[in-house]
Amino acid sequence: MLLHLQTWADVETYLKTSRAIIVPIGSTEQHGPNGLVGTDAICAEVIGRGIGEAAGALVGPTISVGMAQHHLAFPGSITMKPTTLIAYIRDYVASLSRAGFERFYFINGHGGNIATTTAAFSEIYADTSLSRDSNRPSVKCKLRNWWESAAVKQLSKELYGDSEGSHATPSEVSLTWYAYPDAARPMTMNPAVAPKGEFTDAADYRRNFPDGRIGSNPGLSTAEAGKRLFDAAVKDLAVDYKAFASS
Amino acid sequence: MLLHLQTWADVETYLKTSRAIIVPIGSTEQHGPNGLVGTDAICAEVIGRGIGEAAGALVGPTISVGMAQHHLAFPGSITMKPTTLIAYIRDYVASLSRAGFERFYFINGHGGNIATTTAAFSEIYADTSLSRDSNRPSVKCKLRNWWESAAVKQLSKELYGDSEGSHATPSEVSLTWYAYPDAARPMTMNPAVAPKGEFTDAADYRRNFPDGRIGSNPGLSTAEAGKRLFDAAVKDLAVDYKAFASS
Amino acid sequence: MLLHLQTWADVETYLKTSRAIIVPIGSTEQHGPNGLVGTDAICAEVIGRGIGEAAGALVGPTISVGMAQHHLAFPGSITMKPTTLIAYIRDYVASLSRAGFERFYFINGHGGNIATTTAAFSEIYADTSLSRDSNRPSVKCKLRNWWESAAVKQLSKELYGDSEGSHATPSEVSLTWYAYPDAARPMTMNPAVAPKGEFTDAADYRRNFPDGRIGSNPGLSTAEAGKRLFDAAVKDLAVDYKAFASS
Amino acid sequence: MLLHLQTWADVETYLKTSRAIIVPIGSTEQHGPNGLVGTDAICAEVIGRGIGEAAGALVGPTISVGMAQHHLAFPGSITMKPTTLIAYIRDYVASLSRAGFERFYFINGHGGNIATTTAAFSEIYADTSLSRDSNRPSVKCKLRNWWESAAVKQLSKELYGDSEGSHATPSEVSLTWYAYPDAARPMTMNPAVAPKGEFTDAADYRRNFPDGRIGSNPGLSTAEAGKRLFDAAVKDLAVDYKAFASS
Amino acid sequence: MLLHLQTWADVETYLKTSRAIIVPIGSTEQHGPNGLVGTDAICAEVIGRGIGEAAGALVGPTISVGMAQHHLAFPGSITMKPTTLIAYIRDYVASLSRAGFERFYFINGHGGNIATTTAAFSEIYADTSLSRDSNRPSVKCKLRNWWESAAVKQLSKELYGDSEGSHATPSEVSLTWYAYPDAARPMTMNPAVAPKGEFTDAADYRRNFPDGRIGSNPGLSTAEAGKRLFDAAVKDLAVDYKAFASS
Amino acid sequence: MLLHLQTWADVETYLKTSRAIIVPIGSTEQHGPNGLVGTDAICAEVIGRGIGEAAGALVGPTISVGMAQHHLAFPGSITMKPTTLIAYIRDYVASLSRAGFERFYFINGHGGNIATTTAAFSEIYADTSLSRDSNRPSVKCKLRNWWESAAVKQLSKELYGDSEGSHATPSEVSLTWYAYPDAARPMTMNPAVAPKGEFTDAADYRRNFPDGRIGSNPGLSTAEAGKRLFDAAVKDLAVDYKAFASS
Repeated sequence: MLLHLQTWADVETYLKTSRAIIVPIGSTEQHGPNGLVGTDAICAEVIGRGIGEAAGALVGPTISVGMAQHHLAFPGSITMKPTTLIAYIRDYVASLSRAGFERFYFINGHGGNIATTTAAFSEIYADTSLSRDSNRPSVKCKLRNWWESAAVKQLSKELYGDSEGSHATPSEVSLTWYAYPDAARPMTMNPAVAPKGEFTDAADYRRNFPDGRIGSNPGLSTAEAGKRLFDAAVKDLAVDYKAFASS
Repeated sequence: MLLHLQTWADVETYLKTSRAIIVPIGSTEQHGPNGLVGTDAICAEVIGRGIGEAAGALVGPTISVGMAQHHLAFPGSITMKPTTLIAYIRDYVASLSRAGFERFYFINGHGGNIATTTAAFSEIYADTSLSRDSNRPSVKCKLRNWWESAAVKQLSKELYGDSEGSHATPSEVSLTWYAYPDAARPMTMNPAVAPKGEFTDAADYRRNFPDGRIGSNPGLSTAEAGKRLFDAAVKDLAVDYKAFASS
Repeated sequence: MLLHLQTWADVETYLKTSRAIIVPIGSTEQHGPNGLVGTDAICAEVIGRGIGEAAGALVGPTISVGMAQHHLAFPGSITMKPTTLIAYIRDYVASLSRAGFERFYFINGHGGNIATTTAAFSEIYADTSLSRDSNRPSVKCKLRNWWESAAVKQLSKELYGDSEGSHATPSEVSLTWYAYPDAARPMTMNPAVAPKGEFTDAADYRRNFPDGRIGSNPGLSTAEAGKRLFDAAVKDLAVDYKAFASS
Repeated sequence: MLLHLQTWADVETYLKTSRAIIVPIGSTEQHGPNGLVGTDAICAEVIGRGIGEAAGALVGPTISVGMAQHHLAFPGSITMKPTTLIAYIRDYVASLSRAGFERFYFINGHGGNIATTTAAFSEIYADTSLSRDSNRPSVKCKLRNWWESAAVKQLSKELYGDSEGSHATPSEVSLTWYAYPDAARPMTMNPAVAPKGEFTDAADYRRNFPDGRIGSNPGLSTAEAGKRLFDAAVKDLAVDYKAFASS
Repeated sequence: MLLHLQTWADVETYLKTSRAIIVPIGSTEQHGPNGLVGTDAICAEVIGRGIGEAAGALVGPTISVGMAQHHLAFPGSITMKPTTLIAYIRDYVASLSRAGFERFYFINGHGGNIATTTAAFSEIYADTSLSRDSNRPSVKCKLRNWWESAAVKQLSKELYGDSEGSHATPSEVSLTWYAYPDAARPMTMNPAVAPKGEFTDAADYRRNFPDGRIGSNPGLSTAEAGKRLFDAAVKDLAVDYKAFASS
Repeated sequence: MLLHLQTWADVETYLKTSRAIIVPIGSTEQHGPNGLVGTDAICAEVIGRGIGEAAGALVGPTISVGMAQHHLAFPGSITMKPTTLIAYIRDYVASLSRAGFERFYFINGHGGNIATTTAAFSEIYADTSLSRDSNRPSVKCKLRNWWESAAVKQLSKELYGDSEGSHATPSEVSLTWYAYPDAARPMTMNPAVAPKGEFTDAADYRRNFPDGRIGSNPGLSTAEAGKRLFDAAVKDLAVDYKAFASS
């Protein structure tokens, strides 16, 4: 149930049975030689919608630009500064909590979002914690990285082992190919597995990871694997969502 | 050509022939009894992509939440505060201009975005105007409301005359039904044409416009009209985009 | 009735019969070869005070610096960044609403202020719309461009036709000469009518409009015309103000 | 020489012989039973202009709203939050320094502005101090309280002794009556001299100082005394300004 | 080598051989029935100084207030909002990098700081990543939680097993008693081990964890254990620091 | 009584008899050839704790980094921008006032903090003054510069006369040597007394005051003098604190 495809009266009705909503949050950034710039937003959106269908939950508009400063040396990447993203998430949650939503389940597609999104939740809670206004609604936010559901982790390991890596992984690329079969670009990587390591700013990142990948071989991606990963993630996370929604 | 479905190398190639990009900007807000909460984002996205195809232009991720504070008394509506949206647009443009983009063509789906988006452009220009840094890229931003293309205005008038109104219009609702046929909800409005008027905050809006519409009769919406409006808008705006891109 | 020339007890008395106030907002920026840097602030202030006298209304201190980033390549121009001006207007309105003012009638002298001032109103309303605090006062803000009153538009057209242009217009220059006769500088423009067009940042503006004018011939300015424009504006807008004050 | 009454070409010419400008900064706030709400802005403006005439210096637009949170319990008072005023002063100075101004001489009319204005100067300097950009202009800002010029202090003491007080003083009220003779309101105060003390927020202020005065007897104000104070201040400060302008 | 106990000339000399500095970051918040409000700041400071001595490294002033909004229902707790803490860390790093420091090694004493501090690093890097200023220094920041050094984790497990918990742990309390023997307060906890779980804002936290502990039994704390933990942490982290400093 | 060495239950108990707290605020900045970078933080902390002991008052964590932009050309100096420091103080006070503290007594060690800290207090009060929320606690903040207590001023004059100066003074250096005897560095200054004058940004400061001192001869510093200054300050200020705490 996509919020975008409801009327306001539908939402009013929904709120009578649930106070929870799913919020996909991704990123717009390079994903190596054959991964899409939209990979993280696509993964979060596709899985968020899958959970929504499985759990009868409303799905809010995807936050498709995240914190991706380290990718800016590759064209097509877009970042929000952390303080901008915090303000964005704060306004998003405040708007819906004003209408009665109380549980915000963020499905995250990008590791680089974790710190800033968590800080945004604290910014939201801090307003309540510092306030004496007893009318304040009780809001609860949760962040779930789709690739860390138990079933997904096991499947990724089984499928790709040490070739999974941590950026432009075959798992996430596979998932986008499942979602957008026409966008699939089978390709042989050179080297097969990209170097691993840390990074700071965009120049540093590009110096260390010249084709954008970290530790991964997305040459192994297939739409079929994407389908399996999707099914695994949705199955796991729909259960998790339901528990959260009724907490 | 959706940015989300490109690789970074594709974008690098694109930049050799064009420095322009289309940015759809909409809103997530109530659109009356049978209009979708996502109407403005859907309209901007659909037309932005249409122009992209017609003009061979890259289309960035849709800014799907805009300035919609006045709709917050209807559940499902989300707003960015103006200062948040300014920061968001500033970071979006800065990220892409860092990679070499110089022309940002915003296709807007929501009247309530105009002031804030225009202010955001000034915020971006002000940084350059106040600076002595001669390395700053020369950035140009333009905002186009899809419903104000000459052809669209004429067609809307022809189709709906005084029933067009200014919020939850049959034109925009038709366009979303063309984009999402399954979301179409034919319905008889009561009163046929909604009241007109002004508004300030969310409580004031809901008091004046109890079902969310302003001056419109979206009961007249049809997917067929949506198709005609789409064609008219894309034809007009693709020409406008090309002139801007090469300015 | 200028707020600056009242005591606080006078204001307390005023509030017993009216909750409205006029706020002139202008700009400090170049106005071509013979226009004053203070043109927009002067026009807003003079007309704001005229309305105040005609309608028995209180007039707050003029906001004499506005959003003028595009003029910064001409010395003497001052800009507020949009986000600064939003904060300024927010604090101005909040202070007076705290004392009981509920209707803020902004008389604007500068086209470049429109977007940012409108965004500022939304920022103010958004705080209310996002809040559950039922003690919040009900505030209403309105922006009126003096040059767009029906009578002024007609008179400008009659007086200057195609030589009116859009920046450093003979109408606004005339109005300042009426207000400050000693500041009048009759001058023949070369070319008579300045080029038209669009602009982005300050460097772009100066490149396109080398003497600062856009589409205008302020060589036609006279203090007499200024008097007629003043009378026309005040007559129109005093009516408009009264309707707003009692809304 | 008022900036507002110059053309941009005049300013360009001025910059060939001087890089300095006078900036009057005041406040809009209650000034006791017979003092004007605009007292501090009027005093700063009048004396700033006097110095401008005496020293052949340019005078920028008056900052007529300052930091006056403690006066908000009296109607007509307006405050900028300190962070807003800092942003305002930062943009004001940045705009003019972009054009070549390097010395900003603030004539202050309000004790409550001192801390925030000084902090604003530090905010401006901090940007330079933290930067490695060697193109940054060398800006110098100075704040002068008109009532603390040596000649004014002596004259105030001579005229009013212990009845001068610290808010709504007979000296400042006299100065406004000199500037606006029609606004003079001779009145006997009761008690003759107001209580002294400290304050925090607006409620606390009004509790302690019920008619708005602190330690003063503005019943002693006269336009004649205002003239003498004006002359004394301008004579002193014009010398000080010249030294600063050429520093 | 504490920065606070050096002269500026000492720092100048230090910079000839090292560009790295240790920054302890803690929190001021309740730590259960017998833990100190300053526990996290003390732990970070003590271990930061230990590493400084072991590695001959400079140690900056402790950031003793962190992100602790969830503890505010217990008196004595202080929080920075995430956006405030981001600004604080940004200015801290910018100041020292201006002088030539390039490696910032943050020793963290509080789990609640991790997200915000990581976001702060991204805010710092984003400025560089979005900039074209080639003079920008190359800054690298690293966050290390003292309790997650391999040796400390092993020792905590050995000492306390399932009684370690996650807030007001016997390990951190022991460490503070080693640092401040007079502050030790042996006490029997009831229940011995506190409940586990999640939390959102301050009210929610206090509801779930009435005496402030989460999953821990700080009744097992001893200064002797504190000494062992200190030695283990310093030994591990001094090696890690040296590798980072020379990276 | 250091807040850091209390449990939350201790603070709860303290609040039953007092609503006041001492907050030391210093700076981290160069202090001439033989003064410590931490001088201002050390002085504020040592005297704040002395007052705490003398008056049985709680002492919060030292704000050890202040507004020191003008010292940034000397390595080891750290500044908060004024707007950052305002946010920091605002959050610090808000956190403790949430728990019931109502009197905040800031002991200041750095002249450069005065304006910004005072502005921060106004920022805090402005929130209350602009609000209609009757639940807001009544907060009172006071700033005391330790070197301006009557007894300290007299003793400094007696000890150092014209060699006291205004930065890196023998009084403050003596006080740090009393606190940290091992850090004492007797040294002959050249010239004996440093030049006096004003400054703007960091480059300007270093140009005018090449070894960091202003008008002082810290070569006269002794730990013994530090002890006398400490005793004088604590005696004076403990009385002042008590009056404030019960106000």
